[in-house]
Amino acid sequence: MAELDENRPSVQESLEQVMELLHRHELATAAAPRGEGDPRRELVETLVHTLHLAELQKLLDELHPADVAYILEALPVKQRLIVWDLVRAERDGEILLEVSDAVRETLIAHMDEKELVAATGQLDTDEIADLAPDLPREVILDVFKSLPVEEREQLRAAMSYPEDSVGALMDFDVISVRDDVRIEVVLRYLRRLDEMPDHTDQLFVVDREEHLKGLLPINRLLVSDPETLVAAVMVKEYVQFHPDEKAQDAALAFERYDLVSAPVVDGGGKLIGRVTVNAVVDFIREETDSEMLSAGGLREDEDLFASVWKSVKNRWAWLAINLVTAFIASRVIGIFEESIARIVALAALMPIIAGIGGNSGNQTITMIVRALALGQITAANARKLFAKEIGVSIINGLIWGGVVGLFAFLIYHSWQLGVVMTGAMVLNLLLAAVMGVTVPLVMQKLGRDPAVGSSVMITAITDSGGFFIFLGLATVFLV
Amino acid sequence: MAELDENRPSVQESLEQVMELLHRHELATAAAPRGEGDPRRELVETLVHTLHLAELQKLLDELHPADVAYILEALPVKQRLIVWDLVRAERDGEILLEVSDAVRETLIAHMDEKELVAATGQLDTDEIADLAPDLPREVILDVFKSLPVEEREQLRAAMSYPEDSVGALMDFDVISVRDDVRIEVVLRYLRRLDEMPDHTDQLFVVDREEHLKGLLPINRLLVSDPETLVAAVMVKEYVQFHPDEKAQDAALAFERYDLVSAPVVDGGGKLIGRVTVNAVVDFIREETDSEMLSAGGLREDEDLFASVWKSVKNRWAWLAINLVTAFIASRVIGIFEESIARIVALAALMPIIAGIGGNSGNQTITMIVRALALGQITAANARKLFAKEIGVSIINGLIWGGVVGLFAFLIYHSWQLGVVMTGAMVLNLLLAAVMGVTVPLVMQKLGRDPAVGSSVMITAITDSGGFFIFLGLATVFLV
Repeated sequence: MAELDENRPSVQESLEQVMELLHRHELATAAAPRGEGDPRRELVETLVHTLHLAELQKLLDELHPADVAYILEALPVKQRLIVWDLVRAERDGEILLEVSDAVRETLIAHMDEKELVAATGQLDTDEIADLAPDLPREVILDVFKSLPVEEREQLRAAMSYPEDSVGALMDFDVISVRDDVRIEVVLRYLRRLDEMPDHTDQLFVVDREEHLKGLLPINRLLVSDPETLVAAVMVKEYVQFHPDEKAQDAALAFERYDLVSAPVVDGGGKLIGRVTVNAVVDFIREETDSEMLSAGGLREDEDLFASVWKSVKNRWAWLAINLVTAFIASRVIGIFEESIARIVALAALMPIIAGIGGNSGNQTITMIVRALALGQITAANARKLFAKEIGVSIINGLIWGGVVGLFAFLIYHSWQLGVVMTGAMVLNLLLAAVMGVTVPLVMQKLGRDPAVGSSVMITAITDSGGFFIFLGLATVFLV
Repeated sequence: MAELDENRPSVQESLEQVMELLHRHELATAAAPRGEGDPRRELVETLVHTLHLAELQKLLDELHPADVAYILEALPVKQRLIVWDLVRAERDGEILLEVSDAVRETLIAHMDEKELVAATGQLDTDEIADLAPDLPREVILDVFKSLPVEEREQLRAAMSYPEDSVGALMDFDVISVRDDVRIEVVLRYLRRLDEMPDHTDQLFVVDREEHLKGLLPINRLLVSDPETLVAAVMVKEYVQFHPDEKAQDAALAFERYDLVSAPVVDGGGKLIGRVTVNAVVDFIREETDSEMLSAGGLREDEDLFASVWKSVKNRWAWLAINLVTAFIASRVIGIFEESIARIVALAALMPIIAGIGGNSGNQTITMIVRALALGQITAANARKLFAKEIGVSIINGLIWGGVVGLFAFLIYHSWQLGVVMTGAMVLNLLLAAVMGVTVPLVMQKLGRDPAVGSSVMITAITDSGGFFIFLGLATVFLV
């Protein structure tokens, strides 16, 4: 386990302590319903459960905001709100930043306007912009009015960038220096600061008009002769971003070049902010999280303890799409009802062809979507990919088609049925291979994210296609 | 696009240039088959394609190792090896570290022992350990013998940690200082270094026996009075890891506490190395990558241009498992062949029940697997989750069951068939909900990774279960 020095408990242990205290608090509350019984006993019990809450508050005070966020996410809504009320008001803002979107919604719904303004007011402008989509309009206006002019401009800018842009990851905590001063001057300047912003691994070298000229890594600053000029030691080849670039591209650059921070400049080359690795890590986590969720058929991050009704809403879209594809497959089978009435075995065998086809198609699509995300597919190599996938599908079709053909023969004692099974399997895997490459490429071409929906599409194609191929072949050769 | 200053091309543009040069090189080679035709023409053409290769080499020399790795991954094997031969030998090691496992295999297979020893010899011990699993035994022994004693020990240690442990992420580039010296002494000590290791955001404060006493963040070092002692400004509460902890836990800690580096200590508290955020980012990427791949039914990272045979091997396990579950489902249908023979509509309708059940089960499982990975499920809240999922499944069952019941009625004009469809849908979604919570919890209890295989299992259950429920109800009430 990670440990914040030897004496601190791990976050899982903290969660268990919190749950234990909440449980004791609930028992005490249940044992002493208000306005009933012996007043002296009531007083004692009120004291007891006040004590539990005081202990709980002390525990929460010692936790890192990210750990409090974790505990809030793991608690059912009722207990979550008890804990939230115990969190000190001055920590509300930083904790709201850490919790998941779904849980943040439940916390904000529980706070009044004044509390929200106070919580938001403690944050940096880039952090306020992150919270803004979840806050009531009046709260944002109140906070906006309370800011100094420069920060108002920053907030306005930060709120204007789309969620998946570099601008949304950016913060404004930059230390900039001129290139015509000596290292010693820079060191003296830094020493006058109370503290430096987190993740300051480099200073930004700018001219009089704030145009970025170079970077001065702290590590270079420390090993340089204090008498040299900044211009002589600064780095002139570096990665920089524009606020309207895709966050995804910035994340790839951070991964590839092992960056800790990177400058963001406007169209004219003026320094306007920076991106740090912690923002990138959070972005990567959120992005892969939402890919996993959409692969599982969930519209968005779901609060583990969301109401039944909210969960139904979060899940309905996917089920509706699948229902439509299932109806289509059902009608494809409907065409061949006469054949099935004559050879009932077809009904039992057809899901095998459809199922393995879907599987094989998803394997292809997973690989293609991944290569597209990494930008590894070009017009020149797409043909090679087609050839490879078709080769794989023919070999797999013959191997697994042979196995299912044997299965059909052993159970139904008809070699003709076995041969039709094998043939249908080869054809459906071929269909899966061709569409497994084509579907994501076409979606990419149409400007849509191939990671979303490709899997549903390929499954729909191999289901309906598989039923059609198998029942069609059977109708032609067996009926 | 990310840019390494304004003049450098993006990595995608570099890839296109490389492909263009390779293409011209191939044309030149094809136009002049060796040992044939006019010797003067041959000489000219040899010169021409040598020029292409020289230009290509110059381009490669200017690229960051991560970008060369990207280009190697995006090229079919033949072209990949041409490019690999053009990469300067002294860069082989760092590029091998950057490419994916599957592509690394193709590159290593193309190198002889001497080249491999030379490439590996340039790396740090922790990096050698990362490559070791892919290297021939003799190469590792040769490299091992060439190392100084201290580094041999490091390599031995680094190779002993399992792949998913903190030890595997660790490097040995630590700068440590004593707590009884003045800041000024530390600054002078640093100035004597040529450069500091990447990602040095803090120095490690140790005692005479190398026991870790605290951390000295560079940012604090810079703003402190040079006359104060290290002991007075060092941080005493910090996150530290042991080399045998799970890498996953370290990654969570880096995300939660926004770390850039963190110390690794042995059981006795001695500093043995550090973990940096770039290793953590790579780990997160690899881990989510492999989750996506296994969700898509691929055993491991597949080289986009792997041979057909290698791809077949990478994919067969998953297809085999699915074939078994498809056979079982097929036999479940087989039990009811008589009912299907009487009411053929059952064959067309049954995939709808099975399909939506699988879908709904996967939604539940996605949420539970995610909550398990974050450690948010405890004995106390598991019951609440069950209740919620059952609630969701009953509502969804009634809504979507109603829709499919209506569909059946409209097509087959039998209200009894519609009612059986609705009932079967409710029951199958209930089954999906209960098993969607139970399967991952049981897998976790048995010490297996619930992310792997849960989805196959739930689909198998809702397929066979759905067929059984629907055909069973139909047999009882309709036949």
